[in-house]
Amino acid sequence: MKGVIWRIVPGVQIADLSHTIRPQDVRQAALILDRQVYYFPDDTIHVAVVDPGVGTSRRPIAAQIGPQRFVGPDNGIFTPMFKRAEQLGWPIRVVHTHRTAYWLPDVSDIFHGRDVFAPVAAHWASGVPLEALGDVIDDPVHLRLPRPQPTTQGLSGEVTLMFQHFGNLITNIHRDDLSDWSGVVIRLGGVEIDGVVRTFGDREPGTLIALFGSSGHLMIVVVNGRAIDRLPISIGDQVEVIQQPVSPEIL
Amino acid sequence: MKGVIWRIVPGVQIADLSHTIRPQDVRQAALILDRQVYYFPDDTIHVAVVDPGVGTSRRPIAAQIGPQRFVGPDNGIFTPMFKRAEQLGWPIRVVHTHRTAYWLPDVSDIFHGRDVFAPVAAHWASGVPLEALGDVIDDPVHLRLPRPQPTTQGLSGEVTLMFQHFGNLITNIHRDDLSDWSGVVIRLGGVEIDGVVRTFGDREPGTLIALFGSSGHLMIVVVNGRAIDRLPISIGDQVEVIQQPVSPEIL
Amino acid sequence: MKGVIWRIVPGVQIADLSHTIRPQDVRQAALILDRQVYYFPDDTIHVAVVDPGVGTSRRPIAAQIGPQRFVGPDNGIFTPMFKRAEQLGWPIRVVHTHRTAYWLPDVSDIFHGRDVFAPVAAHWASGVPLEALGDVIDDPVHLRLPRPQPTTQGLSGEVTLMFQHFGNLITNIHRDDLSDWSGVVIRLGGVEIDGVVRTFGDREPGTLIALFGSSGHLMIVVVNGRAIDRLPISIGDQVEVIQQPVSPEIL
Repeated sequence: MKGVIWRIVPGVQIADLSHTIRPQDVRQAALILDRQVYYFPDDTIHVAVVDPGVGTSRRPIAAQIGPQRFVGPDNGIFTPMFKRAEQLGWPIRVVHTHRTAYWLPDVSDIFHGRDVFAPVAAHWASGVPLEALGDVIDDPVHLRLPRPQPTTQGLSGEVTLMFQHFGNLITNIHRDDLSDWSGVVIRLGGVEIDGVVRTFGDREPGTLIALFGSSGHLMIVVVNGRAIDRLPISIGDQVEVIQQPVSPEIL
Repeated sequence: MKGVIWRIVPGVQIADLSHTIRPQDVRQAALILDRQVYYFPDDTIHVAVVDPGVGTSRRPIAAQIGPQRFVGPDNGIFTPMFKRAEQLGWPIRVVHTHRTAYWLPDVSDIFHGRDVFAPVAAHWASGVPLEALGDVIDDPVHLRLPRPQPTTQGLSGEVTLMFQHFGNLITNIHRDDLSDWSGVVIRLGGVEIDGVVRTFGDREPGTLIALFGSSGHLMIVVVNGRAIDRLPISIGDQVEVIQQPVSPEIL
Repeated sequence: MKGVIWRIVPGVQIADLSHTIRPQDVRQAALILDRQVYYFPDDTIHVAVVDPGVGTSRRPIAAQIGPQRFVGPDNGIFTPMFKRAEQLGWPIRVVHTHRTAYWLPDVSDIFHGRDVFAPVAAHWASGVPLEALGDVIDDPVHLRLPRPQPTTQGLSGEVTLMFQHFGNLITNIHRDDLSDWSGVVIRLGGVEIDGVVRTFGDREPGTLIALFGSSGHLMIVVVNGRAIDRLPISIGDQVEVIQQPVSPEIL
């Protein structure tokens, strides 16, 4: 893909965002993208290639979503960015990039990252207008991305990401989902964690702790260790935040 | 290696082709290179460092092979590119890069990638002519890369690559090796696969299928799964393509 | 981090030094940096993010150490470079980079690589003087990095790095630590290795050998195999070099 891009726009800079997305896991890819893309310069083109429907009727698309640009399969992989644009009132333009003049001449049925998305992104980067790449569409696919739900005791969310290298896990519960985090208990995988700490160094090595990750989502880690090896837990498993009743005596 | 290159040609762009070649596996590296290099801009220099003979009498070489340039050990790693050049009538020039003026001043016995190939590639990129790097040779090492053989029933080839991340395997049987793929059966690892499908989405998740990979070679995959975990198979194992006899009644 | 850097200095080139440092292993990161940084162009900024104390009182620092520049946590990660500077008489300037004008506006408690080190490095690269980033300090943290000790028979050192991909291990014993390596025996993990060979190809595949790595340190490998799978050994384990007594008859 880098070769294809550099043949079309020789001077362009390229960075890899992740090599550890689980194969075919569109939802994981969507969440990883959402954590990173806003840190890049405006007008960066993000090319997404988690594409289990490659070669089927799923459309290739390009999207201007506020300040960032995206190219990839129309399988919901850009859902979090669409949602953020709606929340912030960013303009969105999405195009079905069917103009084969901007594809490689020979297109395989199984690697559109190389044969369709990379050349389309490169032509777009080189100055071809978005609308020249294909027809505007208004119905891109959206993933269902579950939001945490209020419960009688607090919140119920789920595990969304597990980072193999560090052994940490991330939930879909954001710091802003609760106005008061004092005295909460986190329940997941059969254990309870008392309170949310500020950073790793606040507890001894080996302690299972909850804290807010760099995206603001509740994260479960073992200090200098691996939470995902200690807890019997998978992506999609429930995470509960329980607000402790303040006892009357104390009041 | 990137530091060494940038000290000599500060502005040059560098991409990593693979970090997952099996240690010392020159043949795997050769096949991986052949899948990728032609997508890069003309005159790209590809530096290969799978080099089990480092520090022995094996020569360091640089080669202009048609539109692409190569630097690495003379251990056969560029064999597929040499073969393609012969087929397409591309010019080939190979040089034994023994001129130490283009090496680092201190050369280790075990990492010529950093101490010999990287600086030679950088000097070549900076404008030093190929012939200045050493003496022209006409006997670079060639690997034996087995081609599939015709059988009474079809073709017999072998597994050439196994991709750990996706769990797919690739064979040395190319789409062009058979004029008619209708009704074939693929036999490998004790199983039979009926027919070659066009893409992943043509079958249900979990199905073992055969299809043509992005290089045109026959590939075996499990839809949304891992073929290399399901089949008891290794690189070099036999893969048979069997053409079914058309029954007389149908004729 | 790359996005953050490119927002501030759009044209700058970035390379990844390693993605395989063990989480929180400051010492391993320090040794890996020391093997690589001097090969980069003068004035390269090396950003280090192995940072178990992120969000605590540990200081963020930037350091000019001879010809190279460094940004990261003040946790000892730059110790080998400080030591080398002392040995070679290089000038050293270290700054506590507390000026938040050069940080991202929102700083998480757990990812200063993105929120502090990357923007500080980018501003420094863009021309902001080192002293503008914060106050000069003269007490950066130093790690204890054990040196091999002389014994009655030779030297006693330890394993410092284990490379998972190649299966090799590196010790803290340097080629220069002994004036005469002829006839030595290496003892580690319950085995003895006779002598130090020059390169891999000097012995048959499968042989356990000792040789000098590309940094000049004694390295233990299995030719075309994996030493770390064959030996019951961990980082920090003892490695002895034993000089054989020359027998009087020979003298």
